[in-house]
Amino acid sequence: MTKETPSQGQTTTRDHGGNIQQVLLEFGLRDRQLMDFSSNVNPRGLPPGAAERIARDAANLGLLQCYPDVRALELRRVLSAKHQIGEDCIVIGAGAAELIAASIRGLRARTCLCPIPAFSEYRFACTASGCAFDIFQLKPEEDFHLDVDKLCGYLNHKAHNVLILNNPHNPSGVLYPPDLVLKIIETAQRVNTTVILDEAFVDYCSSASLTREAAQIPSVIALRSLTKFYGCPGLRVGFAVATPSLAAGITAQLQPWPVTVLALNGAAEALRDGEFEIASVESNERERARVAANLRDLGFRVYPSAANFLLMQVPGAGLSATQIWSSLITDYSIYLRNCDSFEGLPVGQYLRTAIRSAAENDRLVEALCQILEGRK
Amino acid sequence: MTKETPSQGQTTTRDHGGNIQQVLLEFGLRDRQLMDFSSNVNPRGLPPGAAERIARDAANLGLLQCYPDVRALELRRVLSAKHQIGEDCIVIGAGAAELIAASIRGLRARTCLCPIPAFSEYRFACTASGCAFDIFQLKPEEDFHLDVDKLCGYLNHKAHNVLILNNPHNPSGVLYPPDLVLKIIETAQRVNTTVILDEAFVDYCSSASLTREAAQIPSVIALRSLTKFYGCPGLRVGFAVATPSLAAGITAQLQPWPVTVLALNGAAEALRDGEFEIASVESNERERARVAANLRDLGFRVYPSAANFLLMQVPGAGLSATQIWSSLITDYSIYLRNCDSFEGLPVGQYLRTAIRSAAENDRLVEALCQILEGRK
Repeated sequence: MTKETPSQGQTTTRDHGGNIQQVLLEFGLRDRQLMDFSSNVNPRGLPPGAAERIARDAANLGLLQCYPDVRALELRRVLSAKHQIGEDCIVIGAGAAELIAASIRGLRARTCLCPIPAFSEYRFACTASGCAFDIFQLKPEEDFHLDVDKLCGYLNHKAHNVLILNNPHNPSGVLYPPDLVLKIIETAQRVNTTVILDEAFVDYCSSASLTREAAQIPSVIALRSLTKFYGCPGLRVGFAVATPSLAAGITAQLQPWPVTVLALNGAAEALRDGEFEIASVESNERERARVAANLRDLGFRVYPSAANFLLMQVPGAGLSATQIWSSLITDYSIYLRNCDSFEGLPVGQYLRTAIRSAAENDRLVEALCQILEGRK
Repeated sequence: MTKETPSQGQTTTRDHGGNIQQVLLEFGLRDRQLMDFSSNVNPRGLPPGAAERIARDAANLGLLQCYPDVRALELRRVLSAKHQIGEDCIVIGAGAAELIAASIRGLRARTCLCPIPAFSEYRFACTASGCAFDIFQLKPEEDFHLDVDKLCGYLNHKAHNVLILNNPHNPSGVLYPPDLVLKIIETAQRVNTTVILDEAFVDYCSSASLTREAAQIPSVIALRSLTKFYGCPGLRVGFAVATPSLAAGITAQLQPWPVTVLALNGAAEALRDGEFEIASVESNERERARVAANLRDLGFRVYPSAANFLLMQVPGAGLSATQIWSSLITDYSIYLRNCDSFEGLPVGQYLRTAIRSAAENDRLVEALCQILEGRK
């Protein structure tokens, strides 16, 4: 277990995918349209019913003149019914990112253990709250396998206040079986460690979700995004699930109206569209398998993913990840996630791509093919 | 200076105006439309250009599919130009409410002094961060006059980490002259107390604002709402102004995308409408004077307000504030702010009303007249 300092050569900036404006500025490509594979957003965009409701509500000046419902009752009820959990187990916030920080604060955590590489906001949220962030290194060469005995050994030794787990794991997409996660939760509970289980991408493999369990187990907080799967991260809404008392502690760390009325209503509508859900999962699985096979054919090492993105290691002894990434932007207007900013991943070797539509995925594969063959 | 415990008979719940859904439920008036005088929102609604842009953006699924610009450049530039402050002095958040809590956390405040009655989120934000909340009682019988010598005496004695000032003051609407506020800031600075200056309603008396000064003085954070004055609190956006290093500390307490793309773009558009601003201030002044005079004619004590609301004390020896408030809801579908939940205001005597359109204000005055005369 390495201590607080980041591993050498790693940045620990607040770097994220989807940062299109910044990238265009840096590359001097002011008016270029980029195809965004860097943030893991459903390429379908919003479900039709949700899109309609948002457009209708946005034109309703009387609605915008009112504060959002402090209890967010409509969305709360839809979530409660869908996940079969009590309404008082749900905390609604402006995206999973806000709920990570609110959870750390709500738990008054002073020490946190987190497998890395990981979403940079975990460390950031801890640092902002004065919570020490201990890392547990996952190994790319072992497909980011989670060594439960070793992890539990650390917990037993130091009894961190919080363990952050991300399932499926970002940036690799690797899914840890729910049984294994439950075993970790059990060990953690014995040493009074609360598990923050970030399931931001579990919609693509929902049978592995422990969101419902989180409403019952007093040492788990499940975090869910709503705007990635429903194609509208511009609207900022997500939720956390925990026992009622833990949920109340997180709510106390949020302002009374964390989410806009448009996002609340749009998300409620989106969740009602079961067909959208099925079609999104199916097309993602199909395209993910196809893109992974194509990338492997090009010589990339591609990690097994249960999510809507793929982590790939660039072929050895050729171009660096940054060279490929830059060429994709400059020559093809394709924007991937350069993983150099992920703490705990060797620099220069990793790119992450979202799964988009078949046509867009084809353009990515063809572009990569040309770059690797030196045609650009 | 009273210690942490609330004064007797006061609740310290997280009670706010604009809680229409809750009130309708409590009164069993499910499908009733209430005229909302309880939250202090500009009755004009959004400026036309902003309304158009929000409606257009909300129908742009490609835009919603992207994360909001992490630097919020467009809105940042508009604010920077309007207030003549550096872009790095501005922190954009999901409403002033979020920025209060982020400021308390960013300052790592352990002790706070705050004149009461006040917005309940001040105490709430402090409690959530483990910051002791000391109160400084303002007296209704002295028109909520701020005794600077007494206040500065407290600061000199205890050197709180933070002093929260609200100008104009809510719920009274009383404006403290900027010179007086600057004198307090000076005293505070000498004992290392940072002043959080909440100017959520200063748009109605903007010459009294110290927002620009906050960018220069290292011991002040100015907080501004954007959605109250621009008629869209459903969209959640506000900003804080401080020196760059203080601003960075507040930003570190926010998630990377605290505000939706619709709110960012809509607010930028709204700020460009100078005519809306002038017309809003003028009509508010006119109506505020008229309503205040009418209420005084009915026997209410009305406090001098520089904002878009009036605090009124009900006529003695008659109906209680709650009786009047309930009758307004039940018999007239008019929803005022019952001030019983304001810590530091005597229970049963105070109501607060927003200034709305002339026709709506007339309906309020007529309803109050009927209630006081016992016609309902």
